[in-house]
Amino acid sequence: MTSPFAPVSTPKLPDITGLILSVTATNMRYKERSDLLTVRFLTEAVTAGVFTRSSMPSAPVDFCRQALAKKQKAKILCVNAGFSNAFTGKAGEKTVQDVANIISHAEGCSSNAVYQASTGVIGQKFSGEELGGYILSNTHQASWEDAARAIMTTDTFPKMAGCSITLSSGHSINFAAIAKGSGMIAPDMGTMLAFIFTDAVIDMTMLQTLLQDVTDKSFNAITVDGDTSTSDTLQIFATGTAQNPPLTGDDLDLFTCALLEICQNLALQIVKDGEGISKFVKINVHEAETPTSARKIGLSIANSPLVKTAIAGEDANWGRIVMAIGKSGEKADRDKTSIFIGGVMIAHNGEAVEGYDEAPVTAHMKGREIDIDVTVGVGSASATVYTCDLTHGYIDINADYRS
Amino acid sequence: MTSPFAPVSTPKLPDITGLILSVTATNMRYKERSDLLTVRFLTEAVTAGVFTRSSMPSAPVDFCRQALAKKQKAKILCVNAGFSNAFTGKAGEKTVQDVANIISHAEGCSSNAVYQASTGVIGQKFSGEELGGYILSNTHQASWEDAARAIMTTDTFPKMAGCSITLSSGHSINFAAIAKGSGMIAPDMGTMLAFIFTDAVIDMTMLQTLLQDVTDKSFNAITVDGDTSTSDTLQIFATGTAQNPPLTGDDLDLFTCALLEICQNLALQIVKDGEGISKFVKINVHEAETPTSARKIGLSIANSPLVKTAIAGEDANWGRIVMAIGKSGEKADRDKTSIFIGGVMIAHNGEAVEGYDEAPVTAHMKGREIDIDVTVGVGSASATVYTCDLTHGYIDINADYRS
Repeated sequence: MTSPFAPVSTPKLPDITGLILSVTATNMRYKERSDLLTVRFLTEAVTAGVFTRSSMPSAPVDFCRQALAKKQKAKILCVNAGFSNAFTGKAGEKTVQDVANIISHAEGCSSNAVYQASTGVIGQKFSGEELGGYILSNTHQASWEDAARAIMTTDTFPKMAGCSITLSSGHSINFAAIAKGSGMIAPDMGTMLAFIFTDAVIDMTMLQTLLQDVTDKSFNAITVDGDTSTSDTLQIFATGTAQNPPLTGDDLDLFTCALLEICQNLALQIVKDGEGISKFVKINVHEAETPTSARKIGLSIANSPLVKTAIAGEDANWGRIVMAIGKSGEKADRDKTSIFIGGVMIAHNGEAVEGYDEAPVTAHMKGREIDIDVTVGVGSASATVYTCDLTHGYIDINADYRS
Repeated sequence: MTSPFAPVSTPKLPDITGLILSVTATNMRYKERSDLLTVRFLTEAVTAGVFTRSSMPSAPVDFCRQALAKKQKAKILCVNAGFSNAFTGKAGEKTVQDVANIISHAEGCSSNAVYQASTGVIGQKFSGEELGGYILSNTHQASWEDAARAIMTTDTFPKMAGCSITLSSGHSINFAAIAKGSGMIAPDMGTMLAFIFTDAVIDMTMLQTLLQDVTDKSFNAITVDGDTSTSDTLQIFATGTAQNPPLTGDDLDLFTCALLEICQNLALQIVKDGEGISKFVKINVHEAETPTSARKIGLSIANSPLVKTAIAGEDANWGRIVMAIGKSGEKADRDKTSIFIGGVMIAHNGEAVEGYDEAPVTAHMKGREIDIDVTVGVGSASATVYTCDLTHGYIDINADYRS
């Protein structure tokens, strides 16, 4: 069933020169749909990446991390959906290496320049030679929407975002990005796979720093079920075809803003496709000790099954929000804690607000988008966290799907 | 719907001399059922307690903690179900104090000797004078089963445990215990309310130490939904009527074993009444760095919605177990990690076991009790954690009940 938050139309993304998108159907796991994306860079692209913090990373995550550590530019990106190549041991390493060898030979590049990502079932081995063959023959030009669809697993809609900015020099910089993710979504990272493409000229070290900075305010601020994938990958590629001068001052700020906006846009699309979602939930935490503490309190609320089921039931059950703050392990002053739902103060300084107006709160709970604000009275730090509710749909999907 | 794990018959608990149980119906929230338990001690009982680590504790939790800090013995224990008196501010404090004043006046004891616990809806204020009146008139003698039923909220069966031991001196020591809890169950603490009564003579400081020691291996090793209540209370009362000599050596070991067994018994009953439970799950973690690390890995598996829904769906989806180990934040060596379901090794040293016998695993997944063992290859510490699956029943109960 398609998420009620699926966009009514597909956004039109700008063209990024210097790269070619292709998709194909391998029929390795999914049938009769594209499940393989390749992005070929005409000249090697500057790249940066942020990966899962899981201690059980997939073979492609290991591979890409090592390549990035060597400051290796990207000649190609290959993404397959269906099998995640996680917990596949030496065979999984060989799969990734075989793909790298086959493609680097054909493309005339270093094997480290063959960036790879995989998503799907954990533990299933598959042949790198077979996948490499599909990649070689995958040359038909595709659209951004084709690309976004080819990497989907339990997603109910393709996730795309893009924008263009104009620098002080008059140069235009374009961004196009795709993502996939629906369950097993929690920091850190907050997505399974997200790829951003830009035509900007930018230094590789600077790009890595910028990407890490925007992650905390986007992908690391979302959660569907508190579960973190073994394959989470966020990677950005810059072709340099915009031929802009070095990014500094206001231009750099503009670039960073555009990057943050794209990451937040994709992150929210992922939550809005949360498995079984019926309501989208925004949680603001105020007066925390530090931003990290505020985020942890927000995530404790966002991941609480009791809070999530109450929202699914359209019940303004603020007592469960109190419980979730209390169990977070973070500093909070009960007697200075207040709770707002839909902007209405329901509890103040450690107790219920006598005779608050229930009608607007009830109406808010029946809506699609739920706003929760809490103040915890121990400092001045804030954070925002996004999540969805926990419904029968989530159980249906996950008691069934083998991911 | 009653849990499929409800005991077929109610256990017979030993009598504990030196105390009188009474229950009554206040009709304050629940109608036509007992919702108030009082336990009167003929002479003040030695007592010890362990409470929620929530930063948002209920007023009764605050009160009992303060009384225990003063080494205050117990003249009476009063427990009401329906309202938890949590997040009720000054009014909640006054409720507890009013009850203490009314009862201490009637019983001729210190107001600190009036131990209290409350469970139910958070944030609802109620009159201590009214509750005090009900306590005063609640004098009709009741059974252990009556007592266990009076403190239930979403529980589907009363939880009771007891045993008797014989010391080297020939003295018999009896234990009787009751508990309640079904949702909002996670360490620390792992129960909402549990009360143990014994006729032993025992030093108050020693009793507190013993109680804390057994908690980690019982109530802190269970989880239903990872949510921790604001009211969690485990308290033990010793009337001293057994007139035994001081507990030392083998006698002390015997006493400790009995206490641990009772706590584990009650803790497992709570999991087995987990909201919406269809399967009971035991998770053993081996080769962890420390016992604490092993327990955290176990809880990461036990609290994973994806693992819990896979179990509900009878799917031996071990990839999700890998994911949950990986996200725990605890040290684990992927390439030395192995996973067993129902005793069958499914994954070994970081990859699937080729051609393992699926038939016994499939049969195991269809059973009521699921055993998961993982080895993480970084040390020699172990831990066991207990949980239940995540089903449509959990959503039904919690999208509806206001707790």
